[in-house]
Amino acid sequence: MKKSTLGLFGLLLFLCVTGAWAQKPVDYVNPMIGTTNYGATHPGAQLPRGMISVSPFNVEGSQNKIEKDAGWNSRGYIYENSFLTGFTHVNLSGVGCPDLGTVMLMPTTGKVSPHPDDYGTTYKNEVSKAGYYSVDLNKYGVKAEMTASRRSSVSRYTFPEGKSNILLNLGLGLTNEQDGMLKVVSPTEIEGFRMVGTFCYNNSKAIYPVYFVMKFSRPADELGAWKESRLNTTSEGNWMGYNGKIRMLPNYRRHVAGDSIGAYMTYNTKANDQVEVKVGISYVSIENARENLAKEIGNKSFETVQREAQAVWNEQLDRIHVEGGTEDDKTVFYTALYHSLIHPNILNDINGEYPEIATGEIGQTKPGKNRYTVFSLWDTYRNLHQLMSLVYPEQQADMVQSMLDMFDENGWLPKWELNSQETFTMVGAPASPVIADTYLRGIRDFDTEKAMHAMLKDANTIEGNPIRPAIDDYTEYGYIPTERDGKDKKGKVWGSVSTSLEYYAADYSIAQMAKELGDMATYKTFMKRAMGYKKLYDKETGMLRPRHRNGKFLTPFDPLAGANFTKNIGYVEGNAYQYQFMVAHDPKGLMRLMGGKRNFVKNLETVFDKEQFDMANEPDIAYPFLFNYAKGEEWRTQKHTRDLLQKHFTNTPEGLPGNDDTGTMSAWAVFSMIGIYPDCPGNMNYAVTAPVFDKVTIKLNPKYYKGKTIVIETENNSLENYIEGITVNGKRNGYFVNHDKLTEGAEMKIKMKSKSAL
Amino acid sequence: MKKSTLGLFGLLLFLCVTGAWAQKPVDYVNPMIGTTNYGATHPGAQLPRGMISVSPFNVEGSQNKIEKDAGWNSRGYIYENSFLTGFTHVNLSGVGCPDLGTVMLMPTTGKVSPHPDDYGTTYKNEVSKAGYYSVDLNKYGVKAEMTASRRSSVSRYTFPEGKSNILLNLGLGLTNEQDGMLKVVSPTEIEGFRMVGTFCYNNSKAIYPVYFVMKFSRPADELGAWKESRLNTTSEGNWMGYNGKIRMLPNYRRHVAGDSIGAYMTYNTKANDQVEVKVGISYVSIENARENLAKEIGNKSFETVQREAQAVWNEQLDRIHVEGGTEDDKTVFYTALYHSLIHPNILNDINGEYPEIATGEIGQTKPGKNRYTVFSLWDTYRNLHQLMSLVYPEQQADMVQSMLDMFDENGWLPKWELNSQETFTMVGAPASPVIADTYLRGIRDFDTEKAMHAMLKDANTIEGNPIRPAIDDYTEYGYIPTERDGKDKKGKVWGSVSTSLEYYAADYSIAQMAKELGDMATYKTFMKRAMGYKKLYDKETGMLRPRHRNGKFLTPFDPLAGANFTKNIGYVEGNAYQYQFMVAHDPKGLMRLMGGKRNFVKNLETVFDKEQFDMANEPDIAYPFLFNYAKGEEWRTQKHTRDLLQKHFTNTPEGLPGNDDTGTMSAWAVFSMIGIYPDCPGNMNYAVTAPVFDKVTIKLNPKYYKGKTIVIETENNSLENYIEGITVNGKRNGYFVNHDKLTEGAEMKIKMKSKSAL
Repeated sequence: MKKSTLGLFGLLLFLCVTGAWAQKPVDYVNPMIGTTNYGATHPGAQLPRGMISVSPFNVEGSQNKIEKDAGWNSRGYIYENSFLTGFTHVNLSGVGCPDLGTVMLMPTTGKVSPHPDDYGTTYKNEVSKAGYYSVDLNKYGVKAEMTASRRSSVSRYTFPEGKSNILLNLGLGLTNEQDGMLKVVSPTEIEGFRMVGTFCYNNSKAIYPVYFVMKFSRPADELGAWKESRLNTTSEGNWMGYNGKIRMLPNYRRHVAGDSIGAYMTYNTKANDQVEVKVGISYVSIENARENLAKEIGNKSFETVQREAQAVWNEQLDRIHVEGGTEDDKTVFYTALYHSLIHPNILNDINGEYPEIATGEIGQTKPGKNRYTVFSLWDTYRNLHQLMSLVYPEQQADMVQSMLDMFDENGWLPKWELNSQETFTMVGAPASPVIADTYLRGIRDFDTEKAMHAMLKDANTIEGNPIRPAIDDYTEYGYIPTERDGKDKKGKVWGSVSTSLEYYAADYSIAQMAKELGDMATYKTFMKRAMGYKKLYDKETGMLRPRHRNGKFLTPFDPLAGANFTKNIGYVEGNAYQYQFMVAHDPKGLMRLMGGKRNFVKNLETVFDKEQFDMANEPDIAYPFLFNYAKGEEWRTQKHTRDLLQKHFTNTPEGLPGNDDTGTMSAWAVFSMIGIYPDCPGNMNYAVTAPVFDKVTIKLNPKYYKGKTIVIETENNSLENYIEGITVNGKRNGYFVNHDKLTEGAEMKIKMKSKSAL
Repeated sequence: MKKSTLGLFGLLLFLCVTGAWAQKPVDYVNPMIGTTNYGATHPGAQLPRGMISVSPFNVEGSQNKIEKDAGWNSRGYIYENSFLTGFTHVNLSGVGCPDLGTVMLMPTTGKVSPHPDDYGTTYKNEVSKAGYYSVDLNKYGVKAEMTASRRSSVSRYTFPEGKSNILLNLGLGLTNEQDGMLKVVSPTEIEGFRMVGTFCYNNSKAIYPVYFVMKFSRPADELGAWKESRLNTTSEGNWMGYNGKIRMLPNYRRHVAGDSIGAYMTYNTKANDQVEVKVGISYVSIENARENLAKEIGNKSFETVQREAQAVWNEQLDRIHVEGGTEDDKTVFYTALYHSLIHPNILNDINGEYPEIATGEIGQTKPGKNRYTVFSLWDTYRNLHQLMSLVYPEQQADMVQSMLDMFDENGWLPKWELNSQETFTMVGAPASPVIADTYLRGIRDFDTEKAMHAMLKDANTIEGNPIRPAIDDYTEYGYIPTERDGKDKKGKVWGSVSTSLEYYAADYSIAQMAKELGDMATYKTFMKRAMGYKKLYDKETGMLRPRHRNGKFLTPFDPLAGANFTKNIGYVEGNAYQYQFMVAHDPKGLMRLMGGKRNFVKNLETVFDKEQFDMANEPDIAYPFLFNYAKGEEWRTQKHTRDLLQKHFTNTPEGLPGNDDTGTMSAWAVFSMIGIYPDCPGNMNYAVTAPVFDKVTIKLNPKYYKGKTIVIETENNSLENYIEGITVNGKRNGYFVNHDKLTEGAEMKIKMKSKSAL
């Protein structure tokens, strides 16, 4: 190509590709990342920690490669699917079980059909940005755009000439809970609720309504509802000509309840006529949903809401400003940060009301505070909350307060809380490390005494302890014996080794917080408990191995068993390799047990060599950083984090290693890319690795931290180079850097060299 | 028994049995009459024309002889059943299709069970009175009592010591519509709605919610809800441990929607602790249900509500005061009058709001007026509305106004309207004879012009006429040809002969009203149409016989075919015999067609002789009175009405001949027992028969009638005697007595003699 032919188009292209135009962090967000490869993120429009999100739903109908009910599927949108049946308004991001993914709107044209297989369509021209999503529906020539505020959203449909419809299909959804209620209030409004819950099928009682109000910018020319008559198999069914069929109810304006129910608004449109639907959501009441919508969006235009969404996102994302790296690096980074800001999300309405956990009462937040929900703590305690504490401490403080409020309401800290339901998903006592870690990082605007009391209740209650089953054996033997292993069996635990390891981690955190509080007795007790892991260490295999009450290890024993979620005694979602090093609180002790540094490094490398390291699940997530504990072997940490980032975190729909786990995978990427990682909850050191970016500036919240910014600068940064030396504020520093030191406003400098030159 | 041993008990017994104690009309009501033999009445507590009724439900569970879903069953209570699973708050009386029979409360003790087969019980000591029902539940030692106001009720449960529960089972009901919604608002209140509708399975779109609010006199010590997880047959179901099961939701206080849902209140009771539940019902909204309850019952005691109910019933029943006859005669009579006062019932709330038909809007009654519903017009146009016009003209006026309001809302007069749904049950244009007959009787406080317009729209609209299908052929040929016969087929009619006969009856009424209005052209046109029956008269068989367009009668032809609801070309729910004389508007003409009086009487007697007269259905209901048209043969009318009353109307649960048809059978009994019967809608003469009572005093409403009372006195009244002569106000009168003459305040005297002496 001759230079002279570059022209304006070429210049623009050049500017775009090189990023020479000033791009804001928000511009780098690509919500399509993680929409396949089981990432389970969605491309919809939402605000940081928003209660609402509006996202395409393409897992219904045999036209799709993956159908929602054909197997275990936690995703409302899957990139490789192609048949869209609506836009859902409540969605989970990056989880492993189906729930929500409902309250669905769908624009169509022509005769109203309530059957998704019939009214669904292929689509093109998807645009997915922070706070905005749009798509063209092939079957209808309709453009659908959506943007969102915290608890409310606006969708804008551009219709062709003719009969145009907006369907509310309340029967369809990802949740496996059934039934709802709706009422067409007027030609411009629909209200109702949808039952959701039983996340992960664990707690059959964990069901609840999500309320909505929908306001249409234009009065419908025709309207109605529909309701399926569920197949009646008694002889009565013989007389029901409508048995098992959907009945259209034109002009129906009363309440309708049931499972497969819906409503529609029909418009006589001219070409390019636009109809907007503003939706308010609440977990308290229809009235609150209406108030949320009125106060958040009211009469604002689509563009205003979108602009505001973009601004809010940009403020949040720009708290970590990165320089250097490729455009893809920045996209991966800011999208990871974006994904770490989805959950936990707010549960309280704009008036502060929220459904309490267990009590059946309506709670009330303090002014300026938020009640958070979606605590996937088994995942997030490992790194996401540390990221929140560092960059969004005001949010992390509310999250801890929310957990303590749950304790007040429910008598127990949360395990895996979802919309004020304890789903009892996964194992361990993960609230304790979150609370202790937050406290230790200096975020202390919560009732410390209550927090300690709550953690100790989890830790010490022998009878009827829903958080720590088998705590009796654990305290007696120092580990949970194999006799107690048995998922979903009363008095049993899922994975005696894994659950023990979770308890050790929690106990270590409790100890650290007790120590900080000057309670040395508790510190000692819990440090001793945390060291119980040594009893599970099997010299013969070098593994943390299931052990009987009588002290004998489980035999036969295959450390490889249990990969890929196959059933395996002793371990949760993994095998012995994936738990071999899950002793983040005492890697040095583990090293000694293994016979020293050499064996430790050898064993740790073996996990990777044997391809037993699972980037897609949490137990081994800190492994790459453990090489930092072996002096002289720190380059391995850098090598592995770089390899893993390159392999698993890409600017593609498959750019997450698996379930994002409500931002845990993304938090791993965020930390790894800026060169520090909190490898152990309750331990205030970050392990250092090679940053992706040449310069990282973290803006600190002055309410919580002395410093204004943390700056991480890297010299000679390239994939071929490794860290030669680290200084913090000009002073030489090792491969761990302290949280307090950083947050005083540190300048950290990393010097790199080629490995051969090291 | 010696006289001296009679004692006080004996005296009381004597007084009771002989009725020597002054018994009021209300004391004679036995709501158990009609609760078997398909009467389909219920023994529950309610007010005249009440929206609410509280009645035992004993058709669920294999413990019952007749199970609700095992066949076509329109009854929520069946006398010979024995297993009770609750008390329903919305019920239909005397209908032939299942609907309502839901919003069910059930007191139990011990552990809460949501399964009717489990929590149901046998019972004893039923007491059923006008406005009161009570029963002892064997399994629990609980006494359940209930009474009602118009739109609200009170139930009182007397519990033993221990855990006592009140269940709201919203999943169970007679209606074949599914789903509802409820919310435990507080420890003393539950609100919600239940979907009902699709009466007779005809109109699949005829579904709607019935709203309720329940207030408990004592706060629950424990409470909760339940919800069934409907069987999920996809692979997702594999992971649902609760798949297809009912999940108890203790302490649940949010909304729950679904089909098998319920709620419970649990009390720690001492022996004989009483808990009252006050229930408000509305077809408009939960708010209105709450207002209905507050304004009608509020803080009134059970006893006050019961006393008021009794007083209201007594005022209504005492409008016909009877003397003479046995205690059983009085019981049969006042219970029949009671049953004629159940439907149509009010639909409007206490604030005047009601759901309009078809529009989806909320209507508003004029002050002091009621919107009525449950118009089983194919039944009731024949005699029930005539009874209402005579004795309760203020109610009949509101009923006509309600029908005209329906015309305004829906564009058509009702056919079989139920809670503002057109169910399209049965055939013909039965609103017209009701309106015309009412007008002709002097009840004219409605828009006459609109009424005529509405009737003529039914009668003359050729295209898209939902009331009179085949009206094109009918007007062209004078009858509906057999070619159009075909139930449930588009453009076809059910029973070409029967439907023609219904159209003739309607046209006759229209003609009469037109004449009264001075519109002689319309009179002539419609009288001509009404005489079309002659074209269906087949000389060969003496029957009204299906006829082709080409004039040929249907061959082969069996006048006996079609009895017992078997399928039969030409006829609706009957055979040729049951329609042979359904020409109430021209018996003289029919007589001429048959070749004179002798043949007429012979043919009419043949119907009875061949046991083709069906007391349990409407087409031939006036036959016994047609002998009055044959001079000298009037004694046959007296004989037949006496025989039929004795055979079919008794003071026993089987004391109705079949479905009461919303009071039509009962109205037949009421008229027959007082000695006059309106044998032809639109004809202002009553046929006279032998009264059961020696003296009958009908109190007239002075707003509508000149006279204060009608008195019918019978001399020498006995079953052996027959009428010798009739005088009205001292003047000799034949076997027909004019409505206007009577309502001027007539004294009618009937003199009897033994037949042999006549």
